[in-house]
Amino acid sequence: MADHQVEAIQYAHTHQDQFLQELEAFCEIPSISTDPQYAAEMQKCANWVANRLQTAGIEHVTVYPTQGHPVVYGDYLKAGDDAPTVLIYGHYDVQPAEPLDKWSTDPFKPEIKGENLYARGATDMKAQVMATIKAVESILKTGALPVNVKFMIEGEEEIGSPNLDEFIQTHRDQLACDVFLNPDTGMINADTPTITYGLRGLAYFEIRLRGARSDLHSGVFGGVVHNPAQVLCELIAGMHDGEGRVTLPGFYDSVRALGEEERAELNRLPMNEETFLELSGAPQLWKGERPYTAVERQGARPTLEINGIISGFTGEGSKTVLPAAAMAKISMRLVPDQDPVEVGNQLRAYLQANTPPTVTWEISELTGSKASISDRHSAGVQALSQALEKVWGKRVVYKREGGSVPVVTQMQQILNVDAVNTGFSTPGDNMHGPDEKTHLPSWRKGIDALIYFFFNFS
Amino acid sequence: MADHQVEAIQYAHTHQDQFLQELEAFCEIPSISTDPQYAAEMQKCANWVANRLQTAGIEHVTVYPTQGHPVVYGDYLKAGDDAPTVLIYGHYDVQPAEPLDKWSTDPFKPEIKGENLYARGATDMKAQVMATIKAVESILKTGALPVNVKFMIEGEEEIGSPNLDEFIQTHRDQLACDVFLNPDTGMINADTPTITYGLRGLAYFEIRLRGARSDLHSGVFGGVVHNPAQVLCELIAGMHDGEGRVTLPGFYDSVRALGEEERAELNRLPMNEETFLELSGAPQLWKGERPYTAVERQGARPTLEINGIISGFTGEGSKTVLPAAAMAKISMRLVPDQDPVEVGNQLRAYLQANTPPTVTWEISELTGSKASISDRHSAGVQALSQALEKVWGKRVVYKREGGSVPVVTQMQQILNVDAVNTGFSTPGDNMHGPDEKTHLPSWRKGIDALIYFFFNFS
Repeated sequence: MADHQVEAIQYAHTHQDQFLQELEAFCEIPSISTDPQYAAEMQKCANWVANRLQTAGIEHVTVYPTQGHPVVYGDYLKAGDDAPTVLIYGHYDVQPAEPLDKWSTDPFKPEIKGENLYARGATDMKAQVMATIKAVESILKTGALPVNVKFMIEGEEEIGSPNLDEFIQTHRDQLACDVFLNPDTGMINADTPTITYGLRGLAYFEIRLRGARSDLHSGVFGGVVHNPAQVLCELIAGMHDGEGRVTLPGFYDSVRALGEEERAELNRLPMNEETFLELSGAPQLWKGERPYTAVERQGARPTLEINGIISGFTGEGSKTVLPAAAMAKISMRLVPDQDPVEVGNQLRAYLQANTPPTVTWEISELTGSKASISDRHSAGVQALSQALEKVWGKRVVYKREGGSVPVVTQMQQILNVDAVNTGFSTPGDNMHGPDEKTHLPSWRKGIDALIYFFFNFS
Repeated sequence: MADHQVEAIQYAHTHQDQFLQELEAFCEIPSISTDPQYAAEMQKCANWVANRLQTAGIEHVTVYPTQGHPVVYGDYLKAGDDAPTVLIYGHYDVQPAEPLDKWSTDPFKPEIKGENLYARGATDMKAQVMATIKAVESILKTGALPVNVKFMIEGEEEIGSPNLDEFIQTHRDQLACDVFLNPDTGMINADTPTITYGLRGLAYFEIRLRGARSDLHSGVFGGVVHNPAQVLCELIAGMHDGEGRVTLPGFYDSVRALGEEERAELNRLPMNEETFLELSGAPQLWKGERPYTAVERQGARPTLEINGIISGFTGEGSKTVLPAAAMAKISMRLVPDQDPVEVGNQLRAYLQANTPPTVTWEISELTGSKASISDRHSAGVQALSQALEKVWGKRVVYKREGGSVPVVTQMQQILNVDAVNTGFSTPGDNMHGPDEKTHLPSWRKGIDALIYFFFNFS
C-alpha cells in the first residue's frame, strides 16, 4: 500500500505536463451555463469530461441529460462493500467572461504567465475537477483504488444548480456515499491548506421598475414624471441602514447567532483587513455590518449586494433622456438558518412598502440555496486534513466561506451526508472576474494531497 | 404684397408632396452628433442642408467647418437696409436612436403612419428646419422676400453646441439681425399655437466611481469591500430630499423666484397633471419639488435627472459579481439665474462631502448652458403671434419650456438679440425617445404660418 502510494505520486509527477495540457484543453471550452447560445459548448464540455473519466480508469461513465445542462456521472466500485465510498462533486460550467475589455488575455485561450494559468473557469473550477480526476487516474494507473469512488460533475453550478436537486433525488441510491468531497472552495492563501466547514447560501433576484411608456425628454417631463432610475437608487440606498445592516423586514430573524468561541476561532485565521485590502485593491475597506469583523462579515454573516444595475443612456456622450425603466440584479448571501424563499418574501415586502405609486415593479427569482455547516470531526475531514498537512507541511485551517455551493445543502438534505469542502484556488485568482487564473504549484500540490486522501481511509 | 402672400401659400400647398419627400430624405441621414462613427454622415447632412437652401433661393450659402461638426450658413439680403433682418436658427443633428429594440420602425427609414411621420429627428428638429426653408422657398419662388433672411443651421445642438459660441463670436457682424427665430420649441398641443418665452439651461455630468481593482466574487468579498453600485445609489438617493428638492449645496441660491403673476399665467396654460399623465403613460405623476405645480416644475423650476446608470452584470441570467466600478449620467435643467459652472461646483462639493473613502470618484462635464427669458412684446414675437393666430384661428399661448437651447443664451449674450421661440412639434412626438415622430398636419400649418410671419414686418 505504501509502495502504491509512492508510485501514484510518481505517476502524477512524471505526467505533470500532460495534466497541464489537458487542463488547458478543458479551459478552452466556453462552457457558459447562463447564456443559451453556449448550449452546444456545454454538451461538448460534458462529453469531454466523461471522456477524461474513462481515460482515468473510471467505469460506468454516463452523461445524464437534465432539463438544463447534462450531469456527468462515473463510478469505480471495485474496492468492495467494506471499503468506504467517496462521492466527488464538481462543475464543468463557468461564469460569463464579461467585461471582455478588462481581460489581459483571451478568456478561452488559456495562457501561462509565471506560475499561473489564465482562463475563465481556470480556478472555478476546472483545475479542481482535473485535480480529482488526475489523482484518481494516478492511483488507478499504478494499482487499485483503496476506496470506492463516484463522480458527479454538473453543468449548472454558476446558475444555482436548478436541476441538480431533482437529479440527486432521482439517483439517490446510485449516489449513496460515506464521504462527500466538494473541491469547490478555496485556500486562505497558497501556503495554508484549508478546509471549509461552512458555506453561505444564495438568493438572487432581478428587480425591474417601469415609469413612463417610453423614454422621455428630460427637459419636457423632468420634475413631473418620476425617474425610475432615481426610484431604484432610493430603494437600493434604503436596503442598508447606517450600521451596514440589511433593512429587509425580518432579514435577521432566522440568522443563527455566532458563538463567542466560533468568533474567536474565525478571527484566528491568517486573514484580516490587510488581506482583503490587498486582494481587492480597494482604496479602503467597507465597515459593513457592525460590529462584526471582516472575516465574520465575509463568511459567517449574511450580506446583500448589487450585482448589476442599468437604466437609460449609458453610451458615450450625453443624451438628455428620462428613462422609462430601470433594472437591478440583487443577491443575498445567506447563513444558517435563513431560507432563500423567505428572503424573497422579505424583498417583496420591502418593495411593496417602499416603492412609490409613480412606478410599477416586478421581481424574478434567479437562484436560491440555503447555507450549510459541516462536522469538523468526520472521517472524511480527518482523512483530508492529514493529506493536506503531509503535502504542505503545515496544519490545516478550518474556515467558513462567503460563497455558496447549493449541492452541499442538497446532499445534506437528500442523502444526509456532510461535505468535505476543500480546493486549491487562492483568493487572488479573480474567480468570477476578469483575468481569472489558477496557481499551478498549488494545483500540483493539490493532486498529491488528493492521492494521499484516498489512501487515508485504510 | 397681399397677392404675393396668397401665391406663396398656394405654392406651399401645391408642393406639399415634394416637401414631404424632402423631409423624408433629410430624416434618412443618421446625423448623430454625439457618436464619432457618424462623422461622415454629419458632413453629408450639412451639405444636404446647404443644397436645400440654395434650391430655395438663398444666396451666399457656406458650410463652415468648426472644431466639431460644421455650421451651415446662408443669407438673402435683397430686401435692403431698411427692411428688418431675421436670423433663423436650426440644427441638423439628432439624438442617438438607442434603445433600438423599443422602436416600431427603423429610426432612419422614415415611415408614415396615419397623420405622423416616424423617424429619429423627425420632430427634433428636421421638420422644423424644413418648415423654415420651405416657407422661404415658397415666398422666393413666387416673388421677393419682404425681409432679409439669414440661416444658421448647426450640427451640435444635441451635444450642447460646444463650438457654436465661438462661431457666433467670429461671425458676429455677418450674423447681425433684428429678429432671431428659433423654431426648436414645441406646441402645447396640436390645436394650440405656442410661443415659448423662457427656456431652461442645462448642466450635464458623468460620474464614475471605482472600488476594487477588478470585479470580485460577491461571496468572497461581499460585506468587506464596498460595492460602488451601492455607493452610487446612495449618493443619487441623497440628491433629492423628502420634499423633492435638490440637495446640492447652494443649488437654489441663484434661482430667480417665480412672481405670483407669472405663476398664475403659467397655470392658465391648457396643460395640467392629466396632460402629463396621458403623454407619458406613467402610472402616476411625481410630486417633485414642493409646493410647485406640474407646469411650474416642468418649465420654471430647476430639476435634476438621472439620464443613465450602469454597473456590474446586466446581461441575462445571474452573475454573482461585486462590481469594480459604477457610472451615472446626471443632468440639471437650470432656470435664471443659475450658472452651469456653479452647478458643477455644487455637484463636486456634494460628492466631496458625501462619497465614502471606500471608493474613488471622478466627474466629467459634458454640456452646460444658461437659461433664458425673452421679451413677449418685441416686433418679432408680435409678427409671429399674428401669423400663428391666422393659421390656427386661435390665440397664441406663451409658455416657459423645460428644455434647453444653448444658442438662445448665446445670441442674447453675444448679439444682444432676444429669441422668438416657436415650433410645430407636439408633446406626444417622443422627442429623444423611441418612435419619435412629427405630426404632419401641424407641420404643414407651420409652413403657412411662417410664410405669414415674413410678411408681417411690412
